[in-house]
Amino acid sequence: MLLERDLIQSVGFRNVTEGGRVTGFQFRVRMPSYRGMAASLIDGIAVRVGNVVDVGPGVPLWTFGGRTYSLQQLWDSDGVRWPLEEAAVVTVPFDGGLPQGVHQITIELRLRMSYIPVEHQPTIHQVSRNVTLAPEGGEGTFRYGVSLYSFMGDYGTVMDLETALAAVADVGATGVEILGEGHIPNYPEPSAGWTDNWFSLLEKYSLEPTNYGSWIDTRLHPGRSMTVAEGAAALQRDLRLANQLGFGFVRPKIGVVSGDLVPDPIWTESVERSLDLAHELGIIICPEIHSPTPIKHPVVDDYIGLIERTGTKNFGLLIDTGIFQDRPIPLRKGEARETRPAFLDGIGVDPADFAAIAQYVVFVQAKFHDINEQLEDQQIPWLPVLKALKDSGYTGYLSSEYEGEREPWRAIEQVRRQHALIRRVTSDLT
Amino acid sequence: MLLERDLIQSVGFRNVTEGGRVTGFQFRVRMPSYRGMAASLIDGIAVRVGNVVDVGPGVPLWTFGGRTYSLQQLWDSDGVRWPLEEAAVVTVPFDGGLPQGVHQITIELRLRMSYIPVEHQPTIHQVSRNVTLAPEGGEGTFRYGVSLYSFMGDYGTVMDLETALAAVADVGATGVEILGEGHIPNYPEPSAGWTDNWFSLLEKYSLEPTNYGSWIDTRLHPGRSMTVAEGAAALQRDLRLANQLGFGFVRPKIGVVSGDLVPDPIWTESVERSLDLAHELGIIICPEIHSPTPIKHPVVDDYIGLIERTGTKNFGLLIDTGIFQDRPIPLRKGEARETRPAFLDGIGVDPADFAAIAQYVVFVQAKFHDINEQLEDQQIPWLPVLKALKDSGYTGYLSSEYEGEREPWRAIEQVRRQHALIRRVTSDLT
Repeated sequence: MLLERDLIQSVGFRNVTEGGRVTGFQFRVRMPSYRGMAASLIDGIAVRVGNVVDVGPGVPLWTFGGRTYSLQQLWDSDGVRWPLEEAAVVTVPFDGGLPQGVHQITIELRLRMSYIPVEHQPTIHQVSRNVTLAPEGGEGTFRYGVSLYSFMGDYGTVMDLETALAAVADVGATGVEILGEGHIPNYPEPSAGWTDNWFSLLEKYSLEPTNYGSWIDTRLHPGRSMTVAEGAAALQRDLRLANQLGFGFVRPKIGVVSGDLVPDPIWTESVERSLDLAHELGIIICPEIHSPTPIKHPVVDDYIGLIERTGTKNFGLLIDTGIFQDRPIPLRKGEARETRPAFLDGIGVDPADFAAIAQYVVFVQAKFHDINEQLEDQQIPWLPVLKALKDSGYTGYLSSEYEGEREPWRAIEQVRRQHALIRRVTSDLT
Repeated sequence: MLLERDLIQSVGFRNVTEGGRVTGFQFRVRMPSYRGMAASLIDGIAVRVGNVVDVGPGVPLWTFGGRTYSLQQLWDSDGVRWPLEEAAVVTVPFDGGLPQGVHQITIELRLRMSYIPVEHQPTIHQVSRNVTLAPEGGEGTFRYGVSLYSFMGDYGTVMDLETALAAVADVGATGVEILGEGHIPNYPEPSAGWTDNWFSLLEKYSLEPTNYGSWIDTRLHPGRSMTVAEGAAALQRDLRLANQLGFGFVRPKIGVVSGDLVPDPIWTESVERSLDLAHELGIIICPEIHSPTPIKHPVVDDYIGLIERTGTKNFGLLIDTGIFQDRPIPLRKGEARETRPAFLDGIGVDPADFAAIAQYVVFVQAKFHDINEQLEDQQIPWLPVLKALKDSGYTGYLSSEYEGEREPWRAIEQVRRQHALIRRVTSDLT
């Protein structure tokens, strides 16, 4: 379990309900010292939130090891500790709580260091950070999930599995999506210990496995393409592993043979040979419809053709919401618009196109790139997209795929903003 | 185990010896994709080092799971994988290897993605980074260690215990120093599982526990100071825990009662009451002489007085090399020289002062703040310091305490530079 670098953590910022009433809010704070310390050495924390909350250092309550204390109780305590590796939970009484959205939290944390001359005491840490309140609303229309793809670059450098799952659960998501060859150590043969830990973490964070990403690497060996038998074997390896870990959807990413992402022709037979196994395991194979492939495209027709031809219930479409992108992703430093793929400006599929294929869609990856502090998405038009999904009767997962800038820890906050946004939009629809 | 954010890792950059001859160098590379992949999808890595090495993508060798392959062997392989969570080891044949110091490594890594149109393939990742070759030299004069204090801020956010110990071992250090209430989860009562893991990691990385940092928090409760009984109990709690984890030195940080860091008078009796236990456990208690306290100071005289008075072998002095700082630490952004403690400009103790107390010194914390790419320390004059230590007969540990800027991952490279520097200086002394 790892903490975010900022002292004020995004994960854990939420309203607090007691006896059916919202009585305040809480957030987590990382120990600013290089050591853990007895909680009696805390001299309080003043908290401001925007211009709505401003409380003195003695007001907030502190939670350590699941028990909550007033500052006076901490002063009187023996053996209560703020460990270096665990964030303190700070609860601020504030009747009715905070409104949904991004808030600027400012803290002035006071710690009493015995080894610093008393005239320089207490040591004061004043920091400020904009963080997103744990989202609420929109329940019952869709299901909400997160793909660990969102944490690309962070996963394995600033997040481990538990840290990632905790961040997912904290947005109120109930589903988690992984990439098989990516999030499973010793893929394709995870240890029994890893698998046990996977299931116990799912239970701890009340998450269910949703979609499992796999690859059919048609260019696996230079100079030759893949046979149908090899393609089917690759897919079936992942179907079995996905099933072993509790997943109900497998998205195979299939090698392509053209500039507009037409999949290698082996895909059809590789999939057809795997449908019985998928049925047996209770898994739906769902290739993604991903920019620059729009909804009205021969590839989509082919996928639907397979469903119609075989009558299978174990094959469906996965929609990546990147196809609805209608404003460009800003150029990166040093990037020239002329040399980058045009689809990064957005292919702007009309959300109304969704209705025609809705009956075949089994999963939605909620791709996005940048959401500002006013919860405005800079690329994806969520209102018409979510309206189209709802109107067509889609009730499945919206599984976040953050694909924006990769500064460490940015994704955690972006995913929170996305969930706050899509749940607000969804609430407004109903 | 976590990886550094840069694709090119500092940890693992070293010369390679075969049959007594240095045949090349190697370094570790983090997978740039969001997924792990079959190693047959690697299309090679071109490597340049400064203007001395420049090899094409087919030249370097690759190590996965302890086995080394040529690029052709990877292409022919089945089941060999580059996992997302493990760095690849890239070995470049280069007779005689690289000279000690900081090198600019530039790589052009090529990966074959089946799901990207072939006209945009291979995917090329070109990055460059200045990294420090694993230090050599200086053996036999001092012993070399690292305190996990060096990784303040990184520990628990971008490093876990194993990541930290791997970084320590990779500089050629043999000793590791920890802070009890900081690096021991559930302090002061670590779980049996944690303790077992501690010892197995020490064995894996060939490290011995050196010094254990503790605190006597004399201001533990507001409004009253600590009694001798409480001070002794605090110290003895840590003596026992340090012993349980294999440490031979305990540095208690004692609360102070004056601006020039005179320790609370309870220190004397708290320590004296603990000497029998320390003896029984084979531990030397060693308070630190830390800036702004110089060597010629009543506090030091008092410590020596205790040794002389009791004849104990279980109490000694720990020197923090920050006392020799002779150039200022630059002002941080927004910091005013007038309001910050003057000692941050350096108290410039004459290294020659060391000789008079050398017989009492049992441990040295090699405090430093910033070392540039030419291996020049900006604050600590290592040549006279190390010469004084050597001339006085000190043969114990130099245990790195990096205390500079806390950008994530910076400490790893700074510690490498310090070890490269002090081992070069030490070699030149002999």
